[in-house]
Amino acid sequence: MHMVVMAGGSGTRFWPASRKDRPKQFLNISGKEPMLVETCNRLHPLARDEEIIIVLGENHLKQAQDLLEGRKVHFLAEPIGRNTAPCIGFGAIYASHLGCKGPVAFLPADHYIGKPGAFTGNLRDALDIADSGAIVTLGIVPTRPDTGYGYIRKSKHQDNRAYRVEAFVEKPDLHRAEQYLVSGEYLWNAGIFVATPETIMREIKRHLPKVFEGLERIRRALDTPRFQEEVLNVYEGLESISFDYGIMEKTREPVYVVPSDCGWSDVGSWESLFVLRSEEHDKDSNLAEGETILVDCAENFVSSRNGRMVACLGLKRCLVVDTQDALLVADLGRSQDVREIIRRLEINGIKHLL
Amino acid sequence: MHMVVMAGGSGTRFWPASRKDRPKQFLNISGKEPMLVETCNRLHPLARDEEIIIVLGENHLKQAQDLLEGRKVHFLAEPIGRNTAPCIGFGAIYASHLGCKGPVAFLPADHYIGKPGAFTGNLRDALDIADSGAIVTLGIVPTRPDTGYGYIRKSKHQDNRAYRVEAFVEKPDLHRAEQYLVSGEYLWNAGIFVATPETIMREIKRHLPKVFEGLERIRRALDTPRFQEEVLNVYEGLESISFDYGIMEKTREPVYVVPSDCGWSDVGSWESLFVLRSEEHDKDSNLAEGETILVDCAENFVSSRNGRMVACLGLKRCLVVDTQDALLVADLGRSQDVREIIRRLEINGIKHLL
Repeated sequence: MHMVVMAGGSGTRFWPASRKDRPKQFLNISGKEPMLVETCNRLHPLARDEEIIIVLGENHLKQAQDLLEGRKVHFLAEPIGRNTAPCIGFGAIYASHLGCKGPVAFLPADHYIGKPGAFTGNLRDALDIADSGAIVTLGIVPTRPDTGYGYIRKSKHQDNRAYRVEAFVEKPDLHRAEQYLVSGEYLWNAGIFVATPETIMREIKRHLPKVFEGLERIRRALDTPRFQEEVLNVYEGLESISFDYGIMEKTREPVYVVPSDCGWSDVGSWESLFVLRSEEHDKDSNLAEGETILVDCAENFVSSRNGRMVACLGLKRCLVVDTQDALLVADLGRSQDVREIIRRLEINGIKHLL
Repeated sequence: MHMVVMAGGSGTRFWPASRKDRPKQFLNISGKEPMLVETCNRLHPLARDEEIIIVLGENHLKQAQDLLEGRKVHFLAEPIGRNTAPCIGFGAIYASHLGCKGPVAFLPADHYIGKPGAFTGNLRDALDIADSGAIVTLGIVPTRPDTGYGYIRKSKHQDNRAYRVEAFVEKPDLHRAEQYLVSGEYLWNAGIFVATPETIMREIKRHLPKVFEGLERIRRALDTPRFQEEVLNVYEGLESISFDYGIMEKTREPVYVVPSDCGWSDVGSWESLFVLRSEEHDKDSNLAEGETILVDCAENFVSSRNGRMVACLGLKRCLVVDTQDALLVADLGRSQDVREIIRRLEINGIKHLL
């Protein structure tokens, strides 16, 4: 089975560990392996390396190749990021080109999955259902009234071994998110889709005809010397649009959702990583990695991966991330606001730290 | 007039900026010049460089010579620290040796003086009084009920243009410190003494006869090739004892105190330095030096002197000190407990950071 791993993000949420040229999917933020490598490994029960296509920014290609050296995964470089609709289309035509006849799973490279076995089981179900030509998505069973995710409203009753998607819903306010959680009818949209390349291209043709035209130009250039040039030409003219907004919210075809209770997280902030890695917390609920000394500290996330000694005294719920050239000290509960630091760096023209 | 600057301390209170081989007096903690240099400069209205004797640890001699390169101050190296009584005695015999006939001031190298003019004025008064053979001390007019300092009880009425010292008092508890403050009869003991070398040696002979013998052996070796060897031999056998405890609390001679309102601080912690440097605080009461970005931060002390960017987000009353090989992040109010970090470093055998 073919898998398209979308590794195009250039997130800044893990600054100072993440940078423009070293986004989250290339980081080992879980303390194990870089997220991209973990994502590929997680797919092994379903796909061999030869069946994995990684779509990513051209500027990150070398880095990804180094991380996965010696492995037979395919790399597909986008010269410019144009959001997920072109990315999924590009992946789809490349999967066809590789001889894929059945459904393909499209999934982000920078998500955390706590229960990989459950995840691949659900993905296998989705692939089975998508074989008939439907679009299937994985919906994460919510564990809290999160206001940071989009939701999927599912049908009350199962249909075709899954649920029908009744609606894709924007990020709700807390009150609504609480209602969603209690109702049991809503799932988190994790941006994981399964469909055959034919289905993907048919939907893109219907709802994003200009994107379709561009992708067809790329398809015709496959295996020719002008491939790279054509990709660049097409991408320069493409609109930037998400698959959710451009296709999923507009399609008139039935869409299915497989509920998944797989310990998923999009790891959107240092704080969410801190929570995810709770098994590594010490008796005072600190998460410390690298050379650290903690005295009278509780509930802190202290990361020293650069060999420097980080000593903490009397801290509570602080985030300390030490890197070679930059240090972040923050209220852990404010870690999602690290973008404000990025903004200041931009304003002050401190480009080498972006 | 001769001055003996006591630079023998090996404080650890400013870790990670201070280390065993780079104690506080060699640091530019005020953001201006190293404390030792500031101490020498402050004495200029009263003494030329040739009249300044710096007593310090042998291991710090090179460092001090570098700091004061090209200046004619004298350096007197102690092979082992034996507290202030031997140090003051050593300084006294060396001042005599340099031809000093009048009183000498003995003062620590690592104190902060906010009003240098007031300070040198008071010191001049003390030197005048000491000319008659008395021991005179500068007593700092207290500004708060501090429990970290020893106190001096002065006479109600002036005598000989100063006050008589009625008692040296140990560090009080808060209740007592408040009484001291209200009474107006108590001053802080800053460890600053003025007396002629003859008076110093007479008192040492009376109360610390073994120290006196040792110092006389050193005196006889002055200007001989065996000077350094003799200093080492003597110091190895000397007891470690403070001038306060060994002499001042025991002397039967009258002791005078000149009250001084000179903005003095012994700068005993990062927090006290933060308070001292309040003029440099930003509008949110942060003190930031070096490459820093502060977002939604108030009342923090952030020091980046090593060229690394230190970004802070949502912090209140935190201390962040970044150095080449170690970083401290602490609750600012706990900064006096940095010794606990030192203790952990010692326990873990991390000697290169001590």
